[in-house]
Amino acid sequence: MIPEAEVGDWQQEVDVVVAGQGVAGTCAALEAHRAGADVLIVERASGGGGASAMSSGIFYLGGGTAVQEAAGYEDDAEQMAAFLMASCDPLDPNAALAFCRDSKAHFDWLEAQGVPFERSYFGGKAVFLMDTTCLMWTGNEKAWPYREAARPAPRGHKVAGAGENAGAAGMQPLIQRCEDEGIAAIYDSAVIALVKSAEGRVVGVKVKQTTGTFFVKARRGVIIACGSHNLCQPLLDQHLPLLSETSEPLAIPSNDGAGVRLGMSAGAHAIAMDGVIPTASIYPPAQLIKGIIVNRNGERFVAEDVYHGRLANFVMEQPGQTAYLILDEEIFAYPENPFSNHTLVDGWETIEEMEAGLDLPAGSLVRTMAQYNADAEKGVDTRFHKHPDWIKPLNKGAFAAFDISFDKSSYLFITLGGIKTDEVGRALDLKSNAIPGLYVVGASAAHIPRTGKAYASGLSLGPGSYFGRRAGAHAAGANWG
Amino acid sequence: MIPEAEVGDWQQEVDVVVAGQGVAGTCAALEAHRAGADVLIVERASGGGGASAMSSGIFYLGGGTAVQEAAGYEDDAEQMAAFLMASCDPLDPNAALAFCRDSKAHFDWLEAQGVPFERSYFGGKAVFLMDTTCLMWTGNEKAWPYREAARPAPRGHKVAGAGENAGAAGMQPLIQRCEDEGIAAIYDSAVIALVKSAEGRVVGVKVKQTTGTFFVKARRGVIIACGSHNLCQPLLDQHLPLLSETSEPLAIPSNDGAGVRLGMSAGAHAIAMDGVIPTASIYPPAQLIKGIIVNRNGERFVAEDVYHGRLANFVMEQPGQTAYLILDEEIFAYPENPFSNHTLVDGWETIEEMEAGLDLPAGSLVRTMAQYNADAEKGVDTRFHKHPDWIKPLNKGAFAAFDISFDKSSYLFITLGGIKTDEVGRALDLKSNAIPGLYVVGASAAHIPRTGKAYASGLSLGPGSYFGRRAGAHAAGANWG
Repeated sequence: MIPEAEVGDWQQEVDVVVAGQGVAGTCAALEAHRAGADVLIVERASGGGGASAMSSGIFYLGGGTAVQEAAGYEDDAEQMAAFLMASCDPLDPNAALAFCRDSKAHFDWLEAQGVPFERSYFGGKAVFLMDTTCLMWTGNEKAWPYREAARPAPRGHKVAGAGENAGAAGMQPLIQRCEDEGIAAIYDSAVIALVKSAEGRVVGVKVKQTTGTFFVKARRGVIIACGSHNLCQPLLDQHLPLLSETSEPLAIPSNDGAGVRLGMSAGAHAIAMDGVIPTASIYPPAQLIKGIIVNRNGERFVAEDVYHGRLANFVMEQPGQTAYLILDEEIFAYPENPFSNHTLVDGWETIEEMEAGLDLPAGSLVRTMAQYNADAEKGVDTRFHKHPDWIKPLNKGAFAAFDISFDKSSYLFITLGGIKTDEVGRALDLKSNAIPGLYVVGASAAHIPRTGKAYASGLSLGPGSYFGRRAGAHAAGANWG
Repeated sequence: MIPEAEVGDWQQEVDVVVAGQGVAGTCAALEAHRAGADVLIVERASGGGGASAMSSGIFYLGGGTAVQEAAGYEDDAEQMAAFLMASCDPLDPNAALAFCRDSKAHFDWLEAQGVPFERSYFGGKAVFLMDTTCLMWTGNEKAWPYREAARPAPRGHKVAGAGENAGAAGMQPLIQRCEDEGIAAIYDSAVIALVKSAEGRVVGVKVKQTTGTFFVKARRGVIIACGSHNLCQPLLDQHLPLLSETSEPLAIPSNDGAGVRLGMSAGAHAIAMDGVIPTASIYPPAQLIKGIIVNRNGERFVAEDVYHGRLANFVMEQPGQTAYLILDEEIFAYPENPFSNHTLVDGWETIEEMEAGLDLPAGSLVRTMAQYNADAEKGVDTRFHKHPDWIKPLNKGAFAAFDISFDKSSYLFITLGGIKTDEVGRALDLKSNAIPGLYVVGASAAHIPRTGKAYASGLSLGPGSYFGRRAGAHAAGANWG
């Protein structure tokens, strides 16, 4: 943080500086520009897109979007809000409620910018799809207890791009819009410091290029949209010691925590820094969900049908971070997730042999499976409330176990913490007072879900794009809605 | 932590050392002793009781206790577990499930020790009762979304003592049992360090008395039951900066964090250190729950009928930690909680005048109340799901507001974090491996609810007494159940 008094010359002056051209920054720039602000995008890479373009391109949206309607799913803002409130218990319920209230309109806005969404639906269990199918279930909507709190609906909206980096198909039209509308952008340029006035308002930034540094004044506000701290080892060491050596960040090189560090430098407060969604999903194929997962004590600890990030969070917390996926012959298959690297331990004729083979306490697995199977005969799971769709007694033929331990498989992760913000993306200090002139959006801000147990795929791009727009509009002084 | 090699002489040798004679330590000592172990209690005060004896004496118990039955309430272990799983999302679900499974039997055990519980019930809203009435609602059981996940039942069991320190009536018979059974106890004695063997096992303690220090060997285990860190300013500064200067710890002098610090010295991991239940409940009288609570933006942010600690956690997180309780003439009353110190701001004839009088953004409170009242006419709360029992349009006569801001009222607090433990109270390291020979129970261990948003009164004494027993039995080598 640099005091304004120490800035000799402002080399450039605009209304709004947007740091980062991922989905949040791009949407912020578009809204600010359209509200009449003079905007400058400052992006570290040689072009826009950020981690959003490298992502699988899923936006969490609902409330009755055209895609949900086409798939025959009823949804409304109230049910979507009920789900997010029950699963995330958001720190700022009003921000979450606004996101839900505006979600349908936000989907329409994204489409109007040219972001392509098919009217297509996948009803099965997948982490993401390699084709252009749009709508799918990406969270804990059908998992207990959330299914009791809100009517489940699929809300993962994937842009119509193929492959594992489908996000690019969503970012391309958004960046094109910025160009078409003449929004200024400089690349290979990093915001390395914020400038604060004597009154405590953020009034500009210091920019670094290979040729040197310079100052840009921001008359109305600075919007930080620099992405996550997935690659910031000091922050990971401090807040996420549970990540194992086999954990792999989902990140691009600039995800070094610049956003959260810039925010903190201006007095903003970082929250949920111990939040992470790790994943090494056991599916596809979906039938593996009919197995059970046990820890080193031979005990189940989670409903196997929950969102893969929730399951992984529980694995991370088990004794020795050890867990096994147990299958019988009827549902046996190799996990097909190419990243997970789950290894087959062995196959056994009896549960007793499996218990010994996995070195579990004597009698523990026999007891766990007897209890599970007794429940399963009635189609229920009295301990963890797995959905009946995924329940069957595990007693057909031989047995097998995959090692899904946290330090054995390859758990990919995304950090969820970041700067605390309000409904319009303003950066907040410890006691939730807004810091004048400063906005933080996208993965530089804390996600609505503060732990991977509450995450749903699409809760980065969905809220990132929405609160990006809110910040852009607010900084430019525009009314919303 | 002292290496065993550095211990010159063991002045005393027992099977199990129990540090602290609050409810957890007392129950641990009784179980260990009855399982044949030679037990020594080391207590810092001049007598037993600890913070448990100074508490209001509420045990969270259920599953169909004799008191629940007498009050005509159906409960079972499965519903109790569903509530705790949904509201606390426990880090160790199996520990929470065990607590629920054994809860009815644990109630019977407490009674068998002489802990007095009336067969009486209070159906209203109270933080605690000054008389000897036993059963009451002490958590979020009837609050959304938890009421959707489990059949609500009252589970706060208060011992039959009068006044605000009713806990003493529960501790007295437990301590008497220790004496009657000849369990050795030394007072004015502090465990100031743990001793670890070369193999990493906790094998004893260093004890300090006014006359000097000495070592006690513990052949089977050391059970830390030293209470909370409510008075440990360095830990509060580090983890709970949101506590305001008007926050007051509920504590006795020895709640200086000795337990969590001893645990950490042996390599145990502390979790949920940012967890706290603050309270300055708006009730009694219960009718005040029919009001609404708004923040500095003139917006509601919580269902007003939730557990008072959940409500206070949300107040703590609002902009400037500011909040107002809004009432109309029909429900107007002064909050009667003698500790809260909520001040009447003023009374006004219209909502517009109130909005101006509270210095809320123009139109904000008018909009909030119009939306609330429109919902209320239909008996619903579409935003926060307040229970219909507490919903009425706020439009009868004049209006008034109480300032319930976090830094204005007197918020009493209890910390919820502590050492991570398993189902038998073993202390766990970062990756949840048990530290041989070391148990941590009661408020030195992390509570099942990791935030005040999930707490229910009685979730200190209830699990504290239960896991104390489990630790005592396990250390002594006894089977459970």
